[in-house]
Amino acid sequence: MSHPNFDHKALRSALGTFTTGVTIITTRAADGTEVGLTANSFNSVSLDPPLVLWSLAKTALSLPVFTDAEYWNVHVLSVDQKPLSDKFAARGKDKFSGLVLDDGISNAPLLSDCTARFQCKTAFIHDGGDHTIFIGEVHDFDQSNKPPLAFQSGQYALTARQPWEGVSLSQVSDTLECSYTEDLLGYLLGRAHFQMLNKMRLVLTDHDLDDIHFFALSVLAISDGITAEELNAHIAYTGRNISIDELNFMKEKDLVSIEADCYQLTELGRQASLQQIAQAKAIEDDLIDNLGQGDVMALKLLLKRVIHNTDPGLPDLWSTPS
Amino acid sequence: MSHPNFDHKALRSALGTFTTGVTIITTRAADGTEVGLTANSFNSVSLDPPLVLWSLAKTALSLPVFTDAEYWNVHVLSVDQKPLSDKFAARGKDKFSGLVLDDGISNAPLLSDCTARFQCKTAFIHDGGDHTIFIGEVHDFDQSNKPPLAFQSGQYALTARQPWEGVSLSQVSDTLECSYTEDLLGYLLGRAHFQMLNKMRLVLTDHDLDDIHFFALSVLAISDGITAEELNAHIAYTGRNISIDELNFMKEKDLVSIEADCYQLTELGRQASLQQIAQAKAIEDDLIDNLGQGDVMALKLLLKRVIHNTDPGLPDLWSTPS
Repeated sequence: MSHPNFDHKALRSALGTFTTGVTIITTRAADGTEVGLTANSFNSVSLDPPLVLWSLAKTALSLPVFTDAEYWNVHVLSVDQKPLSDKFAARGKDKFSGLVLDDGISNAPLLSDCTARFQCKTAFIHDGGDHTIFIGEVHDFDQSNKPPLAFQSGQYALTARQPWEGVSLSQVSDTLECSYTEDLLGYLLGRAHFQMLNKMRLVLTDHDLDDIHFFALSVLAISDGITAEELNAHIAYTGRNISIDELNFMKEKDLVSIEADCYQLTELGRQASLQQIAQAKAIEDDLIDNLGQGDVMALKLLLKRVIHNTDPGLPDLWSTPS
Repeated sequence: MSHPNFDHKALRSALGTFTTGVTIITTRAADGTEVGLTANSFNSVSLDPPLVLWSLAKTALSLPVFTDAEYWNVHVLSVDQKPLSDKFAARGKDKFSGLVLDDGISNAPLLSDCTARFQCKTAFIHDGGDHTIFIGEVHDFDQSNKPPLAFQSGQYALTARQPWEGVSLSQVSDTLECSYTEDLLGYLLGRAHFQMLNKMRLVLTDHDLDDIHFFALSVLAISDGITAEELNAHIAYTGRNISIDELNFMKEKDLVSIEADCYQLTELGRQASLQQIAQAKAIEDDLIDNLGQGDVMALKLLLKRVIHNTDPGLPDLWSTPS
């Protein structure tokens, strides 16, 4: 039985569902030229001896260089190295210009700031259809704690670890008749938000401040000298409104001053806001310690996508003239 | 130069940073026995001819079966198939008991409900140190829209796509002096929550209801017949409190009734709550349409981790006796 003439696009799509990391593989040509390319065909093969493999298109200009090379390095890229991945995925010279190289066991270029690196010596080269398969013995390796970049279905991806079986908030696992479940996204977003805000309140209550004052101070910290109306345009999406009474309360506490109907932070107000920012960052750092940098980055990315998708057309806080 | 005697644990850890999908690879022994195992060493090799590879430990009991087999199937597992992955990762018989198999081009077992499947015929078998590398030609394949399961650093993972370069909420990309940035997790959580809640308000305002009434109705929909104090214990984390006045307002609107100091939903209240749940689900379905099932699943998982991590010790809403 022989395989049919598959639709290459459909085959590529199906193969692409298999998630991979992203690597840059480098070597040095006999004439000293640095060569490197982005590959997601990497995988580990053996621990003893330590072997890894990757494959390279036979049409690749660098094929003869890798075929002749004794040593090559595999760099497992971190989420911060997406631009490097793009650069090495494109054809072109000068991929290495401006890059700081580390010293390795061979003259193959060794890139810095990766999640992991494997310095390899070719063990076998096998035919693989329109690709050539390189199997290398790992002669040295190192690892950082930078979260790795992933790739899936033709797109970069972040990974969210699934560290425990069905993270459940409740002791009760039965689905309830009313069909309100803890798995409702709106509930999860609300509860996560309010629990984070609760930790902010530790700082707020020290100054007799409420959520609404915090929202107002935050907006004024970014966009100073705006009217009560403009201020409320930025707060309206929270479902709350800051009244003139509340603004006067903040004025009495010397947090804001008013000039020609426009509110700005006083020195004390700015200090209070900086303290709030420090608290927000401390809460976030705690979460990073507990969840890991990768999870928090993935969460932020997903929240931004939700915000984009549910944006009722809020004014751009950061581009309001100040 | 020969590689040192690496610490296997450190090498395994470094290799594990390379993210992979999860596959189950199956075949049928000459005596008819179904054989299958979980592998993340899969990768595509070539499009023309269509070749894929994976490697199997030489110590694996199934090695001789795969070496003799003509055909084997690769199943790229979906996030829902984690239990199947665990089952096929363990040694043991009867892995296939209870599984519905689809018809394939060979007699190799073809599992259902996968993200993608590749029906392969062995093309080459290569030595790979303590593993054997199988290269197969794809003779048939298919793909579903189920989000694929990923694996990283010894743990299952979900992937969050990074579909556009630095998802930015603002037109202004400069970091501001005040160091309030749109990248602050607390801000992102708040904005995402309030924008989702805004979409809920479309239903709430139709009934002259406010956020606080929505929170109260939600709690009563799960845990009926509780006192105002018990109700507020569940709401307190939102920073708000439902007053007796507000409860009386809901009573006047015939949404709740009171008996021996305990509140319960009336028929009208239950209907209102069901309508709210339907709206919350519709909002979520819209997001799934736009972000994809995989992203929303990853988001929920991460929010649950945040909630676990910031839980001030809230009463378990779902286990309150009703």
